[in-house]
Amino acid sequence: MATPVSVFGPPLSTAVSRVLACLLEKDVPFQISPVNMAKKEHKSPEYLKIQPFGQVPAFQDESISLFESRAICRYVCEKHAEKGNKGLYGLDQLQKASIDQWIEAEGQSFNPPSTILGFQLIFAPRMNVPQDEKAIKESEEKLSKVLDVYEQRLEQSRYLAGDEFSLADLSHLPNIHYLVNLTDRAELFTSRKNVERWWNEISGRESWKEVVEMQKQGSS
Amino acid sequence: MATPVSVFGPPLSTAVSRVLACLLEKDVPFQISPVNMAKKEHKSPEYLKIQPFGQVPAFQDESISLFESRAICRYVCEKHAEKGNKGLYGLDQLQKASIDQWIEAEGQSFNPPSTILGFQLIFAPRMNVPQDEKAIKESEEKLSKVLDVYEQRLEQSRYLAGDEFSLADLSHLPNIHYLVNLTDRAELFTSRKNVERWWNEISGRESWKEVVEMQKQGSS
Repeated sequence: MATPVSVFGPPLSTAVSRVLACLLEKDVPFQISPVNMAKKEHKSPEYLKIQPFGQVPAFQDESISLFESRAICRYVCEKHAEKGNKGLYGLDQLQKASIDQWIEAEGQSFNPPSTILGFQLIFAPRMNVPQDEKAIKESEEKLSKVLDVYEQRLEQSRYLAGDEFSLADLSHLPNIHYLVNLTDRAELFTSRKNVERWWNEISGRESWKEVVEMQKQGSS
Repeated sequence: MATPVSVFGPPLSTAVSRVLACLLEKDVPFQISPVNMAKKEHKSPEYLKIQPFGQVPAFQDESISLFESRAICRYVCEKHAEKGNKGLYGLDQLQKASIDQWIEAEGQSFNPPSTILGFQLIFAPRMNVPQDEKAIKESEEKLSKVLDVYEQRLEQSRYLAGDEFSLADLSHLPNIHYLVNLTDRAELFTSRKNVERWWNEISGRESWKEVVEMQKQGSS
């Protein structure tokens, strides 16, 4: 049996859970190497050698050490093309281009406001950081506009990049999960018919349910 | 001769110029379809059909219509693997993974503070928008930290993703060009020995010099 790949960082991190969902979809065995962020282990000289920005996740297999969740996911899909969900990163050049387009839309347009909103509504109160009402309002407005585009797209297409579930949909799971299940802003998603249908479909995947279980164990 | 591909948007846009630099590196003939942003043409129903977020660039060839500059660049490199600079997106899986990693670092860590800084220092005054001193200070601090990581990386490696110029370096050209040449913050780059060496090398490429010429013509 091949040595499992290593993912560094806690499953509660949205970027870590993106990589875990991808590995589960691709049936690639992995182990999680804990990084105690409360103890600033992600800023230790040893960790900075594999993740120079001091962020999670980092990733290692027998060939390479990588950071940046979306780059790790692309690599996992390319390297293990024949394993698990074969179409996760597309089966030809045009499918891959459409998937890349929507991964970029996630990274550039969806992720920034949803990360701020998640931090402000969920984590700031837990960390006794005062909430920034202006940031909440601006992020909610930006996210609404992005979701209006998604609603229109998902009226025409079952998934973001086409007829099949792909890395583009998967990349959205961690942030939407937090906003729908741990804040009072679920309506951003459930008030949009096609976004809601899409969310129900992608969050019901076995891979994602397994990640959510890992998050629950990690936070207990 | 193949029909040239179409790029929608002005070369002065950083995201448009990223795509143009890529097409020039790959020797792929293109035509620019003007989008008059002052007249809000990027928000017209016709344009929104090809770029639903109302941003530039959009891209079309005989097979596909795409948006998001980094996704367009990846597609151009995959489709025209044998044209122009063959190694721009790597020659094997491991090179490609390293390039993807640094494209993501650019998109996630480098681009946000450098875009805000460019807007505040260059475009806000031209548009008679009051400058936001807090945003300038925060962005400069964030960008400095990112460039500290780059300085360390570029001490070990000639280019970000390895020994050869790649899409990862290219993606940085538009923002650095503005900050070095149109603001008083060039020192962010020139005060770091390896970043300066790298910037001189990548900005001296014929492809980029041609894009800068197109920007000058566009702004005259």
